[in-house]
Amino acid sequence: ETTAPAPARSHSIAVLPGDGIGPEVVAEAVKVLDAVTSPAGVTLEKTTYPLGAEHWLETGEVLNEDTMERLRGHDAILFGAVGAAPNDKRVPSGILERDLLLKLRFGFDHFVNLRPATLYPGTTSPLANPGEIDFVVVREGTEGLYAGNGGTLRTGTEHEIATEVSVNTAHGVRRLVRYAFELAASRERRKLTLVHKHNVLVNAGRLYQRTVDEFAEQFPEVAVDYMHIDAATIFMTTDPARFDVIVTDNLFGDILTDQAGAVTGGIGLAPSGNINAERTAPSMFEPVHGSAPDIAGTGTAQPTAAILAGAMMLEHLGHADLAERVERAVRRDLELRGTSARSTSQVGDDVVALLGE
Amino acid sequence: ETTAPAPARSHSIAVLPGDGIGPEVVAEAVKVLDAVTSPAGVTLEKTTYPLGAEHWLETGEVLNEDTMERLRGHDAILFGAVGAAPNDKRVPSGILERDLLLKLRFGFDHFVNLRPATLYPGTTSPLANPGEIDFVVVREGTEGLYAGNGGTLRTGTEHEIATEVSVNTAHGVRRLVRYAFELAASRERRKLTLVHKHNVLVNAGRLYQRTVDEFAEQFPEVAVDYMHIDAATIFMTTDPARFDVIVTDNLFGDILTDQAGAVTGGIGLAPSGNINAERTAPSMFEPVHGSAPDIAGTGTAQPTAAILAGAMMLEHLGHADLAERVERAVRRDLELRGTSARSTSQVGDDVVALLGE
Ligand SMILES: CC(C)[C@H](C(=O)O)[C@@H](O)C(=O)O
Ligand SMILES: CC(C)[C@H](C(=O)O)[C@@H](O)C(=O)O
Repeated sequence: ETTAPAPARSHSIAVLPGDGIGPEVVAEAVKVLDAVTSPAGVTLEKTTYPLGAEHWLETGEVLNEDTMERLRGHDAILFGAVGAAPNDKRVPSGILERDLLLKLRFGFDHFVNLRPATLYPGTTSPLANPGEIDFVVVREGTEGLYAGNGGTLRTGTEHEIATEVSVNTAHGVRRLVRYAFELAASRERRKLTLVHKHNVLVNAGRLYQRTVDEFAEQFPEVAVDYMHIDAATIFMTTDPARFDVIVTDNLFGDILTDQAGAVTGGIGLAPSGNINAERTAPSMFEPVHGSAPDIAGTGTAQPTAAILAGAMMLEHLGHADLAERVERAVRRDLELRGTSARSTSQVGDDVVALLGE
Repeated sequence: ETTAPAPARSHSIAVLPGDGIGPEVVAEAVKVLDAVTSPAGVTLEKTTYPLGAEHWLETGEVLNEDTMERLRGHDAILFGAVGAAPNDKRVPSGILERDLLLKLRFGFDHFVNLRPATLYPGTTSPLANPGEIDFVVVREGTEGLYAGNGGTLRTGTEHEIATEVSVNTAHGVRRLVRYAFELAASRERRKLTLVHKHNVLVNAGRLYQRTVDEFAEQFPEVAVDYMHIDAATIFMTTDPARFDVIVTDNLFGDILTDQAGAVTGGIGLAPSGNINAERTAPSMFEPVHGSAPDIAGTGTAQPTAAILAGAMMLEHLGHADLAERVERAVRRDLELRGTSARSTSQVGDDVVALLGE
């Protein structure tokens, strides 16, 4: 009989708080992570990288190659949020999203963007009859319309043509779909739904569908179905409880997970993992929400998504037991207090206090 | 003083019932159209074209050039729905959607895909607090990811690359955005929201944003804002009443209007117009819903969306008064009876009976 190798007791973590509410929610995630790891003899050695709008304004650089290489040396990355206020004309639109967040996802080959959606007891869905929502979106993270392919011709004239190219590869789809099937097989309901739009996007759609069909043969225990993205937004409204594992491309996953965040009580509760499942570079964990510049500094940001992202990181590092403990504490905290008005740091303290239970 | 030219008293209409529940709901739309037009001395001369899955199976043709030319001769097209059952292996996936529906939209330059979303009294939204929902999505209909650009390389191998190209032109965006501004300026709230994803889709996003900025100067009375598509799905869940006119691209519009249909009480109530606003070819009116093969033949399909599509057609033909009368009857019917279980033809009869009120 063999036993799994014991997880390392010490991990080197890069912390990228980012902009807006990013630093505020990351501080609470770190608070909870420290509180759960130290009694267990696990050490998280944290290095903070102050990247984001401020850094860009000061240095003119978003994320240089040198920093990329330093980040590559860590075991995992905890990420807050980036993005300046939309009316801040000093920061060109989208530059931080692309040159920081997407650069990390693409540079470190985060091909699985894992986004669980759970309606916790104590939280309120805007749906009248939400049912028991508990699904995971396995979103592709390194190709599709996010590839940065495309351009313009006759730019700025009345004859301009602007293109965006969705690039999809058998390699990229295969490793994504395999991950999704393995995940579905490990869950109770063993259901997998491919979401795409293969009646219109025939080339990419056929590749996705064929790949799912192939893995379906290897995983006969997983029940497979298909839904167009437009229909998926309907069912996400009328019957989100029907979903178990959703596998989809980068853009559809982006859209669907924000909607999922909304129906499960708000984007302040939705965590995500940008996972390099081949472990050739550090994976990155972040809340699904953005930098919310409008409420930054008010101490009212909901840190729960960041805390749950921290739990996903612990699981990725081999500490499923500690991850489970954090998730239980969050669940209990929501059960007891819901998402009622508490300060950001109070929520962190409340979760810490529940870790022992 | 001048008066507007009187609308024609006779119109030649192409009726394309299509597949599944298409013929069932179109029959009710025609019933209501006849009932409202004939007492007003307006004649709709209808020619039915039996296109769709059956026609394809019999002839191997979806829509040939000869039929296209005959359709071009009509004043408007009333369309049901196309699409075979997903498990019907005789009809290749998406062929009817692309070679019939999209061929008509592209061939007749239906650049405005107009989709009103209204929560009618008497209908039930799946949202707990829907508010007063009354907005219109102005979806682009002739370019974007629907252009059919893209392809595959090393097809079917483990090295396959599949691309989809979103093609956006200044011409296409400009005429769409102009339409949206004119519509917004004519409405009570005078609000226009551009929905896109310009932090990632920078080329197309910039073209849309720049065009909106240009028209905003010409329409100072219209309040303009911007929302990413992912954020839009959140607000569509938490506060759909905030929207007035949404302008967006082909795919985002597809996704958002299905979600809008869901939050306003179901896709069985959502009509749409495929409008060639330059009137160089006939416009086409259809319910947003599909052919729903699972309930076809049961006589339970909700014909309201098709009836409202008929009203949009009347308005397009210059009969705003008759369109208004149909809409009022539908509104009253829903108020009295909601979307309770009635047969498809009963709903048609009930609406007809209310036309006189
Ligand atoms: C900020 C943006 C680039 C990002 C995305 O589109 O992926 C965000 O919306 C997300 O979902 O993580
Ligand atoms: C059937 C399909 C091609 C179509 C679309 O994607 O436009 C439909 O979903 C719609 O919204 O009218």
